[in-house]
Amino acid sequence: MSVTAPLGFRAAGVAAGIKSGGARDLALVVNDGPSRAAAGVFTSNRFKAAPVLWSAQVLSGGRVRAVVLNSGGANACTGPLGFQDTHATAEKVAEVLDDSAAEIAVCSTGLIGERLPMDALLGGVGTAAAQLSRDGGLAAADAIRTTDTVSKISFRRGETGYMVGGMAKGAGMLAPALATMLCVITTDADLTSEELDTVLRKATSVTFDRLDTDGCMSTNDTVLLLASGASGVRPDLAEFEKVVTAVCADLARQLLVDAEGATKAIAIEVVGAASEEDAVAVGRAVARSNLLKCAIHGEDPNWGRVVSAVGTTDAVFDADRVNVAVNGIWICRGGAAGDDRDKVDLRPRDVTITIDLSAGPHTATVHTTDLTAAYVHENSAYSS
Amino acid sequence: MSVTAPLGFRAAGVAAGIKSGGARDLALVVNDGPSRAAAGVFTSNRFKAAPVLWSAQVLSGGRVRAVVLNSGGANACTGPLGFQDTHATAEKVAEVLDDSAAEIAVCSTGLIGERLPMDALLGGVGTAAAQLSRDGGLAAADAIRTTDTVSKISFRRGETGYMVGGMAKGAGMLAPALATMLCVITTDADLTSEELDTVLRKATSVTFDRLDTDGCMSTNDTVLLLASGASGVRPDLAEFEKVVTAVCADLARQLLVDAEGATKAIAIEVVGAASEEDAVAVGRAVARSNLLKCAIHGEDPNWGRVVSAVGTTDAVFDADRVNVAVNGIWICRGGAAGDDRDKVDLRPRDVTITIDLSAGPHTATVHTTDLTAAYVHENSAYSS
Repeated sequence: MSVTAPLGFRAAGVAAGIKSGGARDLALVVNDGPSRAAAGVFTSNRFKAAPVLWSAQVLSGGRVRAVVLNSGGANACTGPLGFQDTHATAEKVAEVLDDSAAEIAVCSTGLIGERLPMDALLGGVGTAAAQLSRDGGLAAADAIRTTDTVSKISFRRGETGYMVGGMAKGAGMLAPALATMLCVITTDADLTSEELDTVLRKATSVTFDRLDTDGCMSTNDTVLLLASGASGVRPDLAEFEKVVTAVCADLARQLLVDAEGATKAIAIEVVGAASEEDAVAVGRAVARSNLLKCAIHGEDPNWGRVVSAVGTTDAVFDADRVNVAVNGIWICRGGAAGDDRDKVDLRPRDVTITIDLSAGPHTATVHTTDLTAAYVHENSAYSS
Repeated sequence: MSVTAPLGFRAAGVAAGIKSGGARDLALVVNDGPSRAAAGVFTSNRFKAAPVLWSAQVLSGGRVRAVVLNSGGANACTGPLGFQDTHATAEKVAEVLDDSAAEIAVCSTGLIGERLPMDALLGGVGTAAAQLSRDGGLAAADAIRTTDTVSKISFRRGETGYMVGGMAKGAGMLAPALATMLCVITTDADLTSEELDTVLRKATSVTFDRLDTDGCMSTNDTVLLLASGASGVRPDLAEFEKVVTAVCADLARQLLVDAEGATKAIAIEVVGAASEEDAVAVGRAVARSNLLKCAIHGEDPNWGRVVSAVGTTDAVFDADRVNVAVNGIWICRGGAAGDDRDKVDLRPRDVTITIDLSAGPHTATVHTTDLTAAYVHENSAYSS
């Protein structure tokens, strides 16, 4: 299923030899139409990988025939030669599909700063093209994994009979800045690239953009939305946005649960904010507090570490009116100690920290994880 | 020595019973004059502890007779009653010194959100007053430790014969935002409070403000500079600033080396910046990258994690012209791989990461540490 759940898409995932261990490392997703409308959002990191620069160019045309994705190397910070590698990859896909390279998006993920093994990669494109199938969605999702322990896939049926499917990868370097990983979403609905762009920006802004596991923003983040139109259905845009948002939220949740070393999934729920921007800013500040993330790992409802992070923001609030609940127990009321902290049960994996700014009607939820020795081990033991 | 190195100061450090283990937990530093000129800088966290609110008020008068400091409790987020506790502490010190509470600064450090045990604390003030001496600087420095494994003290002699001494505490929650810990600096030079204020702001802006071990800003940070005038020397201000900056830099270095769980002291040296602000912004972004801090812990010269952090800033630079050296080896040139990364020796405790933005003549250095499993253990094992 995954990206091949909607009609009009074929996919494949193969072992091209880019990774050393013989695991799958190259995925191809092809849109057989009749439509090729597409939209994309990309990392806001100013060091953009070659495939990000290339794909942003492709998406500016609003049409995508196929996406080729590789793990085993990010092709970031590789200079003009790295960009040529991306271009050659797109040309190779265009050749095997007898199509135009200008409508081939490219995504890469892995170590920054090293060139890709182009012989292996281009050979893998041929192999993948030969294996393209309506059942290839799972293999494609598997091929884009790096430190991900599981494949991330999702699909939903729209009310009027169309489908939305998706796959994603990402386990570290997850921070919100328009897309924080690689993700391809497909649909057989019939929509224009402008409609897809509007929906994708709204959906990612409340899902992937509100995920922050380690405050580190990738150079390669890309989320693509491709529409084949093969169902012949033109959905209501608001309803379509709901379905795409649900798929994005499902994939974001899978990224969160699989985040490197994490043992807790923490929702930072900000309420009573003067604006949604304030709510998001407060949520992000709290989500980035290493001290709080350590405390939650130790199952310590340390609300002092919550408010000290809230206090670093410019959001509208009065320190004497801020309330904090952990898993429903309001242990900080009016900026001081509230209910008995011993009542807080932090044993479940899911933790909700609610911050009431008492400053207005707006809300937002940012998702993060705990900080663990396993995260340190995973990220100090090898280059990734 | 420490705060009692300059003439005109007495100090004491006693076990008042605020901490459970019987360790010293209350310090008193008294300025016997003839001058009482003083200046202070405080946390920019919007949740300011009661002693910060009190001391900022005291310092607005430009005169300080004494500073009372306690560990074992931050008296932060304790509401109006917590403020009354601080006030009562100042009144008690005023009573034992037969002076005015309006010239008594108060500092507290420890867990956020709990009231202080006032009987123990006020009793300790009496004990400390009885033990005040010209030799009390070391005991005072010992009494303000929380998770600090060692006392932090420093002193320097000015060119014209005056002295500057200091003590500090801080091992976690260190992030730059005008003072990131408790610090009292004393001098027997004769200067006005305005002169002291100018010098202290300049000195802290290039020392404590450029220290960031875990991105977490405290609610209690305070740096005070007290002048007794007892040497009778009126130093040249520029020379005095150099001496105060040297004492601050020495104390900041001691905080860095003792940071929770750290095994590496990392200097992020930004050169070629279009402005000093840009240089500091880039330095801080890199200093806050958990992924980089893990990589350095693993002795992996992962420059991709450096540039991906640089890329999150608004600083002026062209991604294709950024160079990065680790311990002197330029492993990233022009935004891509440079010299052989195997040449980088990351075994020493001191690590220097040099980032050349190729955008101007300005520089700044931000200091941080590695991220270790020990940091996670220390901060998840108990409330602090």
